[in-house]
Amino acid sequence: MPDIIQPRVLKGFRDFLPRDEIARQNIESILARTIRSFGFVPIDTPVLEYAEILLGKGGGETDKQVYRFKDHGDRDVAMRYDLTVSFARYMAAHENEIPLPFRRFHLGKVWRGENTQRGRYREFKQCDFDIVGVDALNADIEIILLIKSCFEHLGAGEITIEISQRRIFNRFLERLECGGQAPEVLRTVDKLGKIGEEGVRECLEEFLPAQKACEIIDYTKMEGNYGETLRKIEEAAGGPDASTERMAEIGKQLDDLGIVCVRLNPSITRGLDYYTDIVYETLLDDLPGIGSVCSGGRYNNLASLYTKTELPGVGASIGIDRLAAALEEIGKLDSAAAAGPQIAILMLDDGLNVHYQRIAGRLREYGLDVEIMLEKKRLSAQFKTAERKGIPLAIICGEDEKARGTVNLRDLRTRLSYENLTLEASAEKALKLLGGGE
Amino acid sequence: MPDIIQPRVLKGFRDFLPRDEIARQNIESILARTIRSFGFVPIDTPVLEYAEILLGKGGGETDKQVYRFKDHGDRDVAMRYDLTVSFARYMAAHENEIPLPFRRFHLGKVWRGENTQRGRYREFKQCDFDIVGVDALNADIEIILLIKSCFEHLGAGEITIEISQRRIFNRFLERLECGGQAPEVLRTVDKLGKIGEEGVRECLEEFLPAQKACEIIDYTKMEGNYGETLRKIEEAAGGPDASTERMAEIGKQLDDLGIVCVRLNPSITRGLDYYTDIVYETLLDDLPGIGSVCSGGRYNNLASLYTKTELPGVGASIGIDRLAAALEEIGKLDSAAAAGPQIAILMLDDGLNVHYQRIAGRLREYGLDVEIMLEKKRLSAQFKTAERKGIPLAIICGEDEKARGTVNLRDLRTRLSYENLTLEASAEKALKLLGGGE
Repeated sequence: MPDIIQPRVLKGFRDFLPRDEIARQNIESILARTIRSFGFVPIDTPVLEYAEILLGKGGGETDKQVYRFKDHGDRDVAMRYDLTVSFARYMAAHENEIPLPFRRFHLGKVWRGENTQRGRYREFKQCDFDIVGVDALNADIEIILLIKSCFEHLGAGEITIEISQRRIFNRFLERLECGGQAPEVLRTVDKLGKIGEEGVRECLEEFLPAQKACEIIDYTKMEGNYGETLRKIEEAAGGPDASTERMAEIGKQLDDLGIVCVRLNPSITRGLDYYTDIVYETLLDDLPGIGSVCSGGRYNNLASLYTKTELPGVGASIGIDRLAAALEEIGKLDSAAAAGPQIAILMLDDGLNVHYQRIAGRLREYGLDVEIMLEKKRLSAQFKTAERKGIPLAIICGEDEKARGTVNLRDLRTRLSYENLTLEASAEKALKLLGGGE
Repeated sequence: MPDIIQPRVLKGFRDFLPRDEIARQNIESILARTIRSFGFVPIDTPVLEYAEILLGKGGGETDKQVYRFKDHGDRDVAMRYDLTVSFARYMAAHENEIPLPFRRFHLGKVWRGENTQRGRYREFKQCDFDIVGVDALNADIEIILLIKSCFEHLGAGEITIEISQRRIFNRFLERLECGGQAPEVLRTVDKLGKIGEEGVRECLEEFLPAQKACEIIDYTKMEGNYGETLRKIEEAAGGPDASTERMAEIGKQLDDLGIVCVRLNPSITRGLDYYTDIVYETLLDDLPGIGSVCSGGRYNNLASLYTKTELPGVGASIGIDRLAAALEEIGKLDSAAAAGPQIAILMLDDGLNVHYQRIAGRLREYGLDVEIMLEKKRLSAQFKTAERKGIPLAIICGEDEKARGTVNLRDLRTRLSYENLTLEASAEKALKLLGGGE
């Protein structure tokens, strides 16, 4: 007999107990349903890819975080660290099979070997949705409507979608004569939420004169409303052009649609450098401190590393695990849906197993989730097991009830019993009790 | 501008185009729903684990197939090659948090660097379900009922579940005085489907006398029915004992439940050595040649490598990708469910985007999946795009219809148009046309 191996998991990785996994799957299925209702279709890609594919675009910081190794065939391979790079490769590989514009979504795990401080994990699930093959502002708006619809269906309470425009920011930086430092500036401004205005000012002053740092910080501030903010940044950028007109039209259509949760916030930049136009972040109004729960933007050329075909696109990404934690924190995780079986059939006599299986089969036809206690034990022990598992209802049926063709139904929450019901009546009563309990 | 990187995927890995991914997700959701109706709850575990955890139990052959490497912290890690080993470690890690008996299921990807001949893949999805913490034959029967229910809900046609019993086989081998070679014999007999009776005989004769090889092959043959086969193997094993009585009781209960798809087939051994009692395989009657699509069995101690707590259990596993391929081959993949959006709203005028978004929002309230054509193009081009995407219905609405508060609905399959409908009428008509088209 060998020694016991310690059943530990790697740092930054987690097991999901049923309650948490059900809650997460519930979120995933609401998202998938909502996203599909907008005409998006799911795809999947391999978790492992050639390292050259995944790292071709990723810069220094990312490389260090990627799980990368040699496989049995001595190939240089890596586990995906986001869903975007694989999607770019996918579009290049299948460009002749996919009619454009293409609305795809992808729900899957990604891995990053990053520092596990501050509740960050090395394995997490993302849900990405994108519309590629079209540069229309209608698509930019649709992403906003879809984000809004997702959080409505999740019952996440009020949200604020903050948008901004990279092109206007870049034009402003060129006018300030620091266009060459645009990526650094964008990355620095992106830290506003974390290090505050003074922190950003200090960082900017490390590579820019104080006056320019000051103007950049002024640029990033919101005015009274969308229109006023747009006018300010338009002026800072040197007047109207196609990108300011596009933002004006987006604002107008959102008004016409009665969407009031969108703010033009010039400080939103998204640190990543592949966005070229509009960018999005999403805040839960009940928990703005955790930062954006759904972020994205428009890029002018998704798959340029793998194909010469130009593929403009726009999309956003939701981190499922962070979202689940946030919803739990604000008490919006649907605990009724995050439940196990609804009915336990108690085992009064091993000889009745066939009868219990028949009852279970009938109850399942009513859409009920039913488990049978598999071993005869004292009733009190069986009640206790059912309660520990959070099962709200129990069916009790001995030889007498079997002979009469009835069962007894007990609500373990209220301790009320309903006796001598036909199977049909017990199913209907159960549905009523479960519906009323929510 | 760097050279283009070839957008290739690793050998043995695959992209899933929307049609295939929808079909796979459809299978997964039917399985999850069915399995949950039996009181099973989902869990999740990390894809990466310490190599010592995953390989502690696996024998020589498995090791070579495992993706294993050193992570950034120089830890010896591996990607899971099945869901069972992780589940064993999970049970040991959480034994105080999980009430027994525990019915869990787990749907996830696993990775094996095996030879990619014969349509085998290196990344595939499995769905495992197990009942642990109980040694009752009621649980053995429940797994059979659940397998049956899964394939019924999948609409997979008739199936045959073949069962056998390791203990009886072992007792027979001991009586034959080749108990020491039991694992080799089991692995050899497991190849019957692949190499045929003569192949097995030759393999057995490599390490056993011809007479014993002959008796083993006789043992593996089915008699006229469950009872006769059981009597034969009972006699070969030296008479009745607890395991033959258990198989008799299972046969009796299956009879009482009217289950006729189960056969006692002594040649079913499952090559893996952790099964200790009943074992299961499942054949599609329309395509028996592809072999078992759902296999499993009972093990007397799941997590012995990681805890001293004894955890008996019973379960089975479905390979989602092989099942999808099999269902497609026999024309049982639900192509109606494997569909993208149901309605395309054509873009007659960019200025109508807000109106189209409003229409889409209303139609989505009826449960319809609706996509908006995002750019104004010739109508014929838009119809063509919709058809290429397999979208059955289109909404056509210009300024005139907008003014009247109506839309035109067109069935792209029959080319019939329904004009001047209110939105409500168009939604109801669409639901009718979609329902009737199935």
